[in-house]
Amino acid sequence: MDPHAPAPVRVLIWHEHRHEKINPRVADLYPDGMHEAIAAALRLDPRLRVETATLDDPNHGITADRLADTDVIVWWGHMAHHEVNDDAVDLVTRAVWDGTGAVFLHSAHFAKPFKRLMGTGCDLKWREAGDKEILWVTRPGHPLVDGIDDHIVLPHEEMYGEFFDVPEPDETVMISSFSGGEVFRSLMTWTRGAGRVAYFRPGHETYPTYHDPQVLRVIRNACHWAATRPTPPVQRFGKHDVGWMDAG
Amino acid sequence: MDPHAPAPVRVLIWHEHRHEKINPRVADLYPDGMHEAIAAALRLDPRLRVETATLDDPNHGITADRLADTDVIVWWGHMAHHEVNDDAVDLVTRAVWDGTGAVFLHSAHFAKPFKRLMGTGCDLKWREAGDKEILWVTRPGHPLVDGIDDHIVLPHEEMYGEFFDVPEPDETVMISSFSGGEVFRSLMTWTRGAGRVAYFRPGHETYPTYHDPQVLRVIRNACHWAATRPTPPVQRFGKHDVGWMDAG
Amino acid sequence: MDPHAPAPVRVLIWHEHRHEKINPRVADLYPDGMHEAIAAALRLDPRLRVETATLDDPNHGITADRLADTDVIVWWGHMAHHEVNDDAVDLVTRAVWDGTGAVFLHSAHFAKPFKRLMGTGCDLKWREAGDKEILWVTRPGHPLVDGIDDHIVLPHEEMYGEFFDVPEPDETVMISSFSGGEVFRSLMTWTRGAGRVAYFRPGHETYPTYHDPQVLRVIRNACHWAATRPTPPVQRFGKHDVGWMDAG
Amino acid sequence: MDPHAPAPVRVLIWHEHRHEKINPRVADLYPDGMHEAIAAALRLDPRLRVETATLDDPNHGITADRLADTDVIVWWGHMAHHEVNDDAVDLVTRAVWDGTGAVFLHSAHFAKPFKRLMGTGCDLKWREAGDKEILWVTRPGHPLVDGIDDHIVLPHEEMYGEFFDVPEPDETVMISSFSGGEVFRSLMTWTRGAGRVAYFRPGHETYPTYHDPQVLRVIRNACHWAATRPTPPVQRFGKHDVGWMDAG
Repeated sequence: MDPHAPAPVRVLIWHEHRHEKINPRVADLYPDGMHEAIAAALRLDPRLRVETATLDDPNHGITADRLADTDVIVWWGHMAHHEVNDDAVDLVTRAVWDGTGAVFLHSAHFAKPFKRLMGTGCDLKWREAGDKEILWVTRPGHPLVDGIDDHIVLPHEEMYGEFFDVPEPDETVMISSFSGGEVFRSLMTWTRGAGRVAYFRPGHETYPTYHDPQVLRVIRNACHWAATRPTPPVQRFGKHDVGWMDAG
Repeated sequence: MDPHAPAPVRVLIWHEHRHEKINPRVADLYPDGMHEAIAAALRLDPRLRVETATLDDPNHGITADRLADTDVIVWWGHMAHHEVNDDAVDLVTRAVWDGTGAVFLHSAHFAKPFKRLMGTGCDLKWREAGDKEILWVTRPGHPLVDGIDDHIVLPHEEMYGEFFDVPEPDETVMISSFSGGEVFRSLMTWTRGAGRVAYFRPGHETYPTYHDPQVLRVIRNACHWAATRPTPPVQRFGKHDVGWMDAG
Repeated sequence: MDPHAPAPVRVLIWHEHRHEKINPRVADLYPDGMHEAIAAALRLDPRLRVETATLDDPNHGITADRLADTDVIVWWGHMAHHEVNDDAVDLVTRAVWDGTGAVFLHSAHFAKPFKRLMGTGCDLKWREAGDKEILWVTRPGHPLVDGIDDHIVLPHEEMYGEFFDVPEPDETVMISSFSGGEVFRSLMTWTRGAGRVAYFRPGHETYPTYHDPQVLRVIRNACHWAATRPTPPVQRFGKHDVGWMDAG
Repeated sequence: MDPHAPAPVRVLIWHEHRHEKINPRVADLYPDGMHEAIAAALRLDPRLRVETATLDDPNHGITADRLADTDVIVWWGHMAHHEVNDDAVDLVTRAVWDGTGAVFLHSAHFAKPFKRLMGTGCDLKWREAGDKEILWVTRPGHPLVDGIDDHIVLPHEEMYGEFFDVPEPDETVMISSFSGGEVFRSLMTWTRGAGRVAYFRPGHETYPTYHDPQVLRVIRNACHWAATRPTPPVQRFGKHDVGWMDAG
């Protein structure tokens, strides 16, 4: 190994991992779970160190120590958002404020940490009808779409439609159209404290979306983009007795 | 007239007015020009005072005095952007900086004052094939979409597609999809100095778009939204000899 | 009364109202409470209808019915943030998402509804030393600073200093300097759902800040600016079985 | 040299370089010019490749070939903005749109390429009185302030005060206070096309500001932050005959 290479980005993929256990269609597509499909793709990048955690792990696999060893957390959830312990939500939220990146995928628009970070209801329109989805790049040159041409086509996906009730984003990087005529801002960014937050739409469990090389490329890009290690660590001061104007 | 009513918003609709003179299809749709079709609709609102000006008027109908008597300028241009005198562009740009609102329609994405205010190239994809367009509201409750449900359908329009090379907007209020599958941020806002700027996509000259009541409603909304009369007038100071900390 | 006048903006001033009961200095400055000092000033504006509520009212004076009859809520709290019932916080948050404006004053940076809407920690530096504060306008012409010159001077105030841990705002309208040399973004805006949110810094309870005509003018401006009555009401759709592209 | 290291960021420091030739005070502080003082500091970073150019070079040292070999341009100008050739301004502006980063220093707030990119007047208040300046970090953890504590003190600088007439920035990263009580947003970012743009306030020619290690650190950070090499190159499409919805 090259001793001069920068330390790899420490990625933690968190997955609810329930659909695979009850729906044979999902189990067929993702025999080891969607998290392991994503992890396998990310592990091809030597600049990433990739771990996974799931809802049914002790403490959901989320502890203060583990988050302190994490640069970016990738999150997928859907049918069991309500089972996520509020202490875990607190830990993740505070980690983001201190600089840990967070990438929320698809139905994680209703995940507790995402809603906490957004401060809005996060509702949207949806339809499960195998719509064709085309994701268009609205910020060419952005690190999140490195290596992506001007659009990505997914033959079949769940439809998500506007109004998507999130705060006006820092950046709108991709927008989707669907066969039914709907549109959706499908790749957006925000900052919360020192932490970079991205939402990326595709990934319904009954489609092979996380085997699509371009979708995986965007997720990989997001891990690099969201990784910041604030130097010095973010300080929150509170009481402050001395003015600087005289103190120098 | 009610003596207590607020003064009406002074709107100036500026139109290139060339297509109507050379293309019978356009002349049929807009016998008095697109500017007069829009003006007729806006004049139904007693809170607006509506005037028009065209490229072929003396000084293009743009003088410092007239702009001083204008709260919002609405702009349509296409085939003759290059004929617009740079002095007129300067006047319009400076009026916006001082608080005059500006609403750019359709092919005015390449109008000189729009490009000057954006600071970008303002390119986009386009196709004249009579695509169906659906405009989706992404900011319900915004004054620009007052009275508009969650979407507008236009049976036939020119397609505009992303990447639309404008700066990240303050607000993305509507996004369009087209039959061909493209998407476009079709109603956006920015601020330049004290002036509010909006871009609204629909309005290709060969379609009856400016007879559509919902399109006209958005333009009317935009006139009210963009009208600000800064009080006090915007001051630009330059040299400043005395510090306030001691002067009180 | 003029039958053609627009309906007045319905303002609800919510105040913790505790300091006045235990600190004679505060009681001297605000014998009826800070909320009544602000209310008295706002009531001079016939376009506002002003009510008040306090922490010790039944349900803190916050019910679904009352919020349905409110366009803008103004909030001051400090020593008893933790006593605010979570149900009331839910009601206020959801009202904002549906279009009710919210204006948070001074120490309300740590109020539960503000933190919920921001999604961040909302920490800041502070010092009680009677610093002189100068608030500078960074967005002349903005409705929030209508009638305000380029700066406001407050002879003595509590110091608040950056880093103020809030999301990048939609607009930074005023920035303060303090005698000690610190700075603070003291008037900012965000949007959450259809609701406009503003934070305005001044107002420590031991100073006569809410007797300052310019501070009161900004609060009055904020009530007008934050009042939107979304038409149609904001719809959140969820499941959506039919695509529009064919349905027209 | 490590064969696996990423290619260094190619920085071009552009300097007007006139004050040094006519003002002995400036010549004393910067015997080789401010550009060479900055360049010397940046050259200590092996991940940067640093070149310089000045107004009096042939074509101001700006050609299409040179810009194609540049990732980030750093710009200082003051007394001779008007001497910069419009062709050079066009070249720089278009390079930014295609992804070249641009860092404007101090009096470059009135530089032609900055004004072109902003679309506003870029006026500000100023005073030459040796004010003490304190720059406060408002976005801890941002790459632009890597290695910077919560504030930087400069004993003497020219005062710049708000209102600074630039568009609402993507990010406000530092805000300055001055002895006279003024404030100024002194480190801000925007995006224009694929290019990242930063403005950094300090650097009046009669003070040793560009010998301050923390100021130099911010400029070095800005070079790394602004360097993007869009992959694929930014495409601007124009006419687009085929819809993707059917074409796949």
